[in-house]
Order: sequence, then structure tokens, then C-alpha cells
Amino acid sequence: MATQDAHTSATTSTHMSADASAERIGWHKDYLTGSRPDLRVPVRRVHLSNGRDVRLYDTSGPYTDPAVATDVRRGLAPLRENWIIARGDTEEYSGRPVRPEDDGIKHTSPRGGLRNLDAVFPGRPRQPRRGRDGAAVTQLAYARRGEITAEMEYVALRENVSPEVVREEIAAGRAVLPANVNHPEIEPMIIGKRFLVKVNANIGNSAVTSSIEEEVEKMTWATRWGADTVMDLSTGRNIHTTREWVLRNSPVPIGTVPLYQALEKVDGKAEELSWEIYKDTVIEQAEQGVDYMTVHAGVLLRYVPLTARRKTGIVSRGGSIMAAWCLAHHKESFLYENFEELCEILASYDVTFSLGDGLRPGCIADANDEAQFAELRTLGELNTIAKRHHVQTMIEGPGHVPMHKIKENIDLQQEICEEAPFYTLGPLTTDVAPAYDHITSGIGAAMIAWWGTAMLCYVTPKEHLGLPDRDDVKTGVITYKIAAHAADLAKGHPDAQEWDDALSDARFEFRWEDQFNLAMDPETARAFHDATLPAEPAKTAHFCSMCGPKFCSMRISQDIRREHGGELSAAEVEAGMAAKSKEFAQAGNRVYLPIAD
Amino acid sequence: MATQDAHTSATTSTHMSADASAERIGWHKDYLTGSRPDLRVPVRRVHLSNGRDVRLYDTSGPYTDPAVATDVRRGLAPLRENWIIARGDTEEYSGRPVRPEDDGIKHTSPRGGLRNLDAVFPGRPRQPRRGRDGAAVTQLAYARRGEITAEMEYVALRENVSPEVVREEIAAGRAVLPANVNHPEIEPMIIGKRFLVKVNANIGNSAVTSSIEEEVEKMTWATRWGADTVMDLSTGRNIHTTREWVLRNSPVPIGTVPLYQALEKVDGKAEELSWEIYKDTVIEQAEQGVDYMTVHAGVLLRYVPLTARRKTGIVSRGGSIMAAWCLAHHKESFLYENFEELCEILASYDVTFSLGDGLRPGCIADANDEAQFAELRTLGELNTIAKRHHVQTMIEGPGHVPMHKIKENIDLQQEICEEAPFYTLGPLTTDVAPAYDHITSGIGAAMIAWWGTAMLCYVTPKEHLGLPDRDDVKTGVITYKIAAHAADLAKGHPDAQEWDDALSDARFEFRWEDQFNLAMDPETARAFHDATLPAEPAKTAHFCSMCGPKFCSMRISQDIRREHGGELSAAEVEAGMAAKSKEFAQAGNRVYLPIAD
Repeated sequence: MATQDAHTSATTSTHMSADASAERIGWHKDYLTGSRPDLRVPVRRVHLSNGRDVRLYDTSGPYTDPAVATDVRRGLAPLRENWIIARGDTEEYSGRPVRPEDDGIKHTSPRGGLRNLDAVFPGRPRQPRRGRDGAAVTQLAYARRGEITAEMEYVALRENVSPEVVREEIAAGRAVLPANVNHPEIEPMIIGKRFLVKVNANIGNSAVTSSIEEEVEKMTWATRWGADTVMDLSTGRNIHTTREWVLRNSPVPIGTVPLYQALEKVDGKAEELSWEIYKDTVIEQAEQGVDYMTVHAGVLLRYVPLTARRKTGIVSRGGSIMAAWCLAHHKESFLYENFEELCEILASYDVTFSLGDGLRPGCIADANDEAQFAELRTLGELNTIAKRHHVQTMIEGPGHVPMHKIKENIDLQQEICEEAPFYTLGPLTTDVAPAYDHITSGIGAAMIAWWGTAMLCYVTPKEHLGLPDRDDVKTGVITYKIAAHAADLAKGHPDAQEWDDALSDARFEFRWEDQFNLAMDPETARAFHDATLPAEPAKTAHFCSMCGPKFCSMRISQDIRREHGGELSAAEVEAGMAAKSKEFAQAGNRVYLPIAD
Repeated sequence: MATQDAHTSATTSTHMSADASAERIGWHKDYLTGSRPDLRVPVRRVHLSNGRDVRLYDTSGPYTDPAVATDVRRGLAPLRENWIIARGDTEEYSGRPVRPEDDGIKHTSPRGGLRNLDAVFPGRPRQPRRGRDGAAVTQLAYARRGEITAEMEYVALRENVSPEVVREEIAAGRAVLPANVNHPEIEPMIIGKRFLVKVNANIGNSAVTSSIEEEVEKMTWATRWGADTVMDLSTGRNIHTTREWVLRNSPVPIGTVPLYQALEKVDGKAEELSWEIYKDTVIEQAEQGVDYMTVHAGVLLRYVPLTARRKTGIVSRGGSIMAAWCLAHHKESFLYENFEELCEILASYDVTFSLGDGLRPGCIADANDEAQFAELRTLGELNTIAKRHHVQTMIEGPGHVPMHKIKENIDLQQEICEEAPFYTLGPLTTDVAPAYDHITSGIGAAMIAWWGTAMLCYVTPKEHLGLPDRDDVKTGVITYKIAAHAADLAKGHPDAQEWDDALSDARFEFRWEDQFNLAMDPETARAFHDATLPAEPAKTAHFCSMCGPKFCSMRISQDIRREHGGELSAAEVEAGMAAKSKEFAQAGNRVYLPIAD
């Protein structure tokens, strides 16, 4: 499965388990090393009881490597720093001064500036970095010049494809590799339809409830379960500092919606926003290391009235803010008007655009309407401009869409946006199940990913109702990993099929522990099994807990295979199905049928 | 929405709520009355705070009607009894004597016969009924003769279509109305692609764990959340008595797999099964009132070797039992050989066939293989035979199928089986997420239902791992109701769209209580909302708990609608968004844009 034998290249190979019970160790963190010793790609290697192992994609970062000491107050090691420096096209500079209002603290606050914030990130300060003389230091620019960067080689190993495929997909704009030069901590990953479908998890405090530590913990928790990127959508106090903590501790690319922070700076009054405040916020976040930014530059003044007759109007926060601004000033969007300048800024940090769909439908009735597709055409236009500036670009999609209208979304987006990666929120396939919108949307997400969407933004059970807690984040991520993986299978991804095959083999051969270790959520699978058959011997029992010994179809089916020349597993022979086997052997001698019958 | 105004016809209209808090009442059980006073179709009528109401399909039976006193030890009232008698084509007869072994009690048991069972159903004994002189007393026979039965009128009201449409669909074999003459307690329902997609929930004790009361409780619990039929898959002790309790208390059709009980009668030894034992079991269950039976008559001797090279062989219990029997005897399946006689039996009770897919794939790798489709072709042949005997018939389908292979299943089934209703288990779209198989399969279920599957058999989170408990049953049912409803929407069902529209309107207008009451699971939706914003005023607050007051896109969007001539709801005006409104009104005077811009 690996392009390179990981066992020989593994430099860290300590057995470990995510749960505490040492006797249940069934996997370890491993690394694939590339052409240089500091290019080490993490994988989760699951050890099967039949002596084989299965390599799984791993997003959990150094936190699951017992050989690495992590400290959230110092942040992760800057893994990419030498690669960035070695390219010689960036420079350090003093950077924009951090101001109290970056954290939502007003000038008039009696509590004063940042110094008084307990929450300030204590890690080593680092000068920001940017492209020399405004040069585009983007993976897109490199790919177009024919360069295979260390980041590209990294994702090639990770995706089990050749580096040239990675370069080609990026150069063509069909994939993005979000990697701000100021976020050297990330383990590079790629988003594009040619690769494994990715999942984003949103975190973020809000004015209603907030805590920096909670958000950092949610980020590591989300990546542990498989989130490929995390968006920090914080809107309350300490927004700058929260983001600093998240960035310094994140092994995955971080996305934001700069408009949210810009709005905080004008006390939530959309009409007081300006290009200057927005631009300042983008630079602030780019210097911190945000890898991709959602920009709702497609919400044009003339599109706003198209939403007036909708059932649920505008449901995107960014979209509604921009619509309010446009109406208040009766002017074209400052994001649209200043888009070229914005491209220059993003290019000099390699921040990836995520062109937001501010007019996405908020209910089934509004799906695929004029407002939505008018904006999509504008996003196509902006995509072309961004590419001219060598800015990596993906396009956001809906939302709420009934099943029969989903395919039109991806087909149209791919056509209009020259196959730029599509990044969708769900879509939810019905409005009537609040508290289960991870499921209503997981259905749509799987379908749209199968048809070519590159990344899925998760939806948690709390969608429409409240802020997700730890359990909701896990449920959301796992539901979306299922959707993404189902799409990988449907797209015929060979690594995806290998995973399913390994688990199904284990199931057929009653290797319960292998089933658990291969499961997307080993702990819950084990706990559910234990709830019915808690005794340890049951996990090697040759019948399923659902059927009981008499009825187990897997067992009867194994007997049939035995009669017809299928392979016997070692486990089967060992574990003593002797009694039952004898029973059938007698019949077997009489009934043998050739396969060719 | 109703073909008849329910308010005028409602005979019971007491306000009630499923949860205990009286102040939260938002719906009541109502009835639509047909052409005769004893034809009363239950609906759930949700009252909205804007004075409107929404009618929802209701499967919960008399249990949610405060005007009806129910007693599980006596069973439900035999609602259809007079209709059946009035047709004059059935007769009562003494019936097959119930024997100890029907409950899994061996002849040699020192505990003796049924009389010693505490569990025996205490309700009023009733003579079984069957067609006079072996006549086919099936809804199919009536429909073909042009008769619209009371049951057909009932489902027409329930589905909001004309009775003639119901008759036509049944007559054409495109729909079934499972209604054994010995199960007069059911509220008739219909399964066919022209109608709302239905959901089945499995219950059943097993040799590993069991309790009669638990199974009855699971049945009422499943129907409360929306199960349209329930299959009793019990395999342990008291199998006859458990079924009696379930049938007498069930407002929905009950399905079984008679092979499971037959196997109990031969102590689990598949090779000791015979047509006589099987036939006796079918009659036993038909006399009790089982409405549809899964029959794995398509597992032919020559197909068994086709499974030998599969990754997971045969995963259907019934399929593996029949395969074992075929191999043990080296003879063709006794179900296939005696199928015509079986048809005659089913026709005389109006038991519906659910032709089982004993060779369905048990993993992604085995999907759509030769064994599976060979069996499907045989099911097509059996479907034709069953129809000749006027037996209502549906066809079971998989299983585990990756997304890109799902459509082929329904298309082929519809072609081969002359559009007989397809009834699928999921399908699961990946194997790697045990503990989340309600989700892996909910994705496939929604898709296959959109493409024409008539009924979905639910999968719970415990699939592959253990026996579902109460919470698992609820989660499974709701996940599948979501899949079914998403399919109804995608098929363009007008009633389905109306439900989504009502909820989305409530969401847009911040009518939180209406949102909860319209939700598929009001209690959980309310609880999730309360977890973030527990105070009662928050439920009338004009911002979402996710965004906080500054960012609420719904609120900003409402402001936009106000500027552009969208309708204002009464709630909006009332609830006093005056302050914010004024803010925008000033801007509004300057920025008005005509819709036609």
C-alpha cells in the first residue's frame, strides 16, 4: 500500500493506544520518510492478529506520538520552517502591531490593553514572514514553475501518489495545499478531487459562551478523530489570542472568516465596515498563520434583492453581513471592488482563498435558486482573478439541498470555476430534523463528495440549536469521515477499498479485536459489543452477538466456504470450531459442488 | 393538505403531548374520517404559534390518543374486524393447536407445555380466520377485481391520494398493503414507490438475551418514533408467545422470518429442516396474524458455490440456513420446490411475501456480484408465480453497497420484478464504521429510496456489534425516517415539502417552539437548544444560539427582507424587533432596490 516501506523508514515506532488500557494496543503511530530526513509523514498503522498490518491516514498530529513531548503553552515544533527558509523567497519583518481591539477590547476599556489579558499566548514570539517584494510564495506559483516542493512531496507520500501528480493538480488549480508561510507547524495536506475527500471541523467561541482552552482542546479533539482542517470561527472576546493558541498548536491547516473579526472591530455594525478595517484584519490573521480564509466577495449589491422572496433569506453570516453593508451604502461590495489587492496580500503569505457562498440556500425550498447561482458565477470570475495572482483557491458550496438537486451544484461549480476544489457544508437533505443535522447533511455530503467535492465542512448534531460540545464535535467529525470515506470508495480509491476489505475480512473471521482496531471509532465499537457480551471470551467467540450461536450466518457461511475450497484463516483453525466443523464435514463429503457448476 | 377537512371530521381532538410538561403542548392526535364512521385515520396535528397547523403522518397507534385506554395484556381493539367479516369471504376455524415446541420447549422438557409458561398472552382468545375454500382473500385479488376496500380507502386518506390510485398501484403489483385477516388491530398502511417511503424496525429477543415485555415495549417505542412496520426476529425461548403479545398490541403490520422459528423446532440443525416443519410454522404464524413473511426461496443449490470466493460469504441468516440445507441434502431448496403451495397458504390469510435476498452482499467488496444478481433473477420468477396466486409481494434488497453501485440494484430489481416494491436493508456504503452503521446505511438508504425503493429496513448503531436497546431503536428509526423523508422530498412529494417549509418558516421567524414541535424529535431538539441557552426567553429570542445577537444571519436577513417587500410575519411584528428595525429603516430609506434590478 505504501510507496515506500514504512517499517524500514520508521524512525518512531512506539506502540501506543488512544485509550488507557494497555492490553488493547492494536495500532501505533508510524512515519513514512521522504527524500530528506525531516520529511516524515505520520500514519496510523493497525496491527492485525493475523500478522498483517493496515496503514491509515493520520490527522492527529504529534499528540498521538509518545516520542514527542507537547506543551500547548509553547506550541508545536515548526516542522516546515527550514523548507520555507530554504526557498529563499520570503523575508521576516516586524509586522503589524497587535492592538487591544484585535481581541475585542475597546479603546475605552478601563481594563486596558493586551498586557492585562491572562489569556495571551505565552509561546516563543516569532517575526512574521512574507514574500520578498510582494512575490507570490504560493504552492500554486511553485507548481506552475514546475517545482515539486517539500510540501508536495509530503502530501504525495500521504496520499500514496506520485509527487508529479500532486504538482500537476495544484498547477491546474484542481487542488490546493493550504500552507501559510507563517504556519510552519502544519503537516501538509491537499484538497482536490483527485485525492482523498477531506473534512473540516468548525470550532470557535462566541459572544454567548467562550473559553480559549476549550477551543484549543476542541481542535486537537477534532483532529484526533480525523478532521483534516479546522476553521476557527470565534466571534467573542480574545479572538486574536484564541487564534494564536489554536494556530501554534494545530497540526492541520486553519481557516477563518476574517469578516467576523472585522465586524467585532466595529462593534457589530455592518455598515461601519470598510476595506481598510477588513484589509488590516486579513494582514493580522495572515501574519499569525491562517492557512485559508473564507471571503464572501461574491455577494454583489444586485444579488441581494434576489433573496428577498426566499423562504429563509440569507443564512450565511458572512453573506448577510456583506448584504447589510451593500444595502447600507448602496455601493458594490468592498470585497469585490478590492479583490485584486486582496489577492496580492494572500499571495505574499500563501493564504488560500475559500470563496464563500454568502447566498447559499438555508432551506430545501431555496436550493439552486437564482441568487445562489448568480453568486456562483461571480465566484467563477473571482477564481480566475485569484489564479492570475497565483493564489490557491477553493469554492464554497451549500447548504440545504434536496437530493435530486445536489448534482447540479457540483457540476455547475466545476464548470464555472474551472475545476477548482469545491468545499461544501453538507448539504442538508431535509430541514425537519434539528438535533440530527449531522445525519441529514451526512447524506448530502457523501453524495456531493462522490460526484467530485474535495472537502466537506462538518455539521454537528447541535446545528441550528446551539454550540457543539466535545461529544458533538466527535459525532460531527466521524459522521463526515464516513461520508468522505464512502465517497472515496465510490470513486474507486484503492486505499479506501483496502481498509474496508481489511475490516470485512476481520468480521468474517471473527477477529473482533481487529474489527475494533480498524473501526473509525474503536472505543465505541468495543463498548457497544461489550454491552451485549461483556465477557472477554466473547471477543474471540465464533458467533455474532446479534444472532447467538445457532443462527450466526457468518459461521454457517464459513462452513460453506470450507466445503468449497475457500481459504481457511489461521484464526479459524486455531480457535477451535472443531465441533461444528465435524458436523458439516460429514455432509460435506457428499455434497461437494464444483465452482463452475 | 388534507383531502377532507380534518377539523370537521375529528372525533377525538384532545390536546396532549408526548412529554410530561403540560406547558409545552404543541400538537394533538387527530383523525380523518372516511366514508364510514369506523374508518378513522390518525394524524399528528402540530399547532403553530401563528395560528396555522401542519398535519403529519402518524404511526404511533392508539397509545398516543388520551381518549383510548390501552392495556398490553388485552391488546388493541380489532379495528378491521367488521370490514373483514363484512367481505364474507373468510371463515373462522379451530386452527392448528399450539404446541410447547412453538415456544422452543422440547418434548422432553420437564417443565411441560404452554400452560406452565408465565408469559402466555392473557388476552381474549380468538379463532383464526382464513379464506373460504382456499380463496385468495388478498388486497391484490380485490384490487384486481376493481374493489376499493376499506383498507384501501384508509391508506388513501393517510397518503392524501385518491382511493383509485391506491387500488391501481396494488392491482399492478407496484404496491402492497400488508394486512393479514388475523391481524385486525392494524391501522392499514401501504408500501409502494408512488407513496411515502416507509421504514421498518426490527425487534426480537435472541438466545443471548430476551424478554417478552421488552420486545412489546420496543415495538410501541419504534412506532412512536415513526416505524411503519415492525419485524419480530425473535429466535430464543417463548418465540410464539412473544409474537402473540407483539401482534395483539401492534398498530402496524408485523413481519417475520418463519425460517428462524422452524430452525428452533429442529434445535438449530439446518439439515433437519423440512417442508413440513416449515409449512407448519408458516400456518402457525399466519393464524396468529403475521402480515408479511420473509421467505428466502431464491437461494438455489447452484448459487451457493458462487458465494465461496466472496469476502464475507453469506451474511443473511435465512440465506445461510437455506444454503446449509441445500448443501447438506444436495437437493434444491424446499422453499423453491414448494413455492406454489406456499403461495396458496399465504393467499388464504392475505400474508404478503417479502422475498428475501439470502445472498445479499455482506461487505463493499461483494456488492452486485454474480451470486446476488442470480438470486434476484430467481426472485423475479417467484414474484410472477406469487402474483398468479394473488399474493401481494415485495422484494428484499441489500445490504452493503458502495454509492456508485446502488442505483443498479433498484433499476435491476424494478426491471426483473415488474416494479414490485423494493425493500432494502440500508445499504451500508462502507464497512469501516461499526457503531455508526445507522449512518453508513442511512446514506445508502436515502439514495436508494430516492431512486424508487418503497421501504427501508432500519439499521441501528449496534449493527454488527450487539442487540439494540431502547436508545438504539430510537436512533435507528429516526435516522431512517430522515432517509425516507429526504427521499420523499427528492421525489417531489408535496406533503413532504410542506413539512420542510413549515419548519423553515418557523426557523426564519424565530418561532423556536414551532421548530421544536415540527422536528422529527421535538424533545432532543429542545434539549439541545436548552443546553446552550437554557433560559425560557431565549426560545423567543431573535437570534440563534450559535451566533449570538451581533452575528445572527437570520436576523440580518429579516432586515433585508423588510427592505425589499418580503412579507412580515405577525410574530416578527409582535415580538418587537423595533430597536434593530429602526436602525436599518434609516438606511433603508436610502437604499431601496427594486426586485427587478
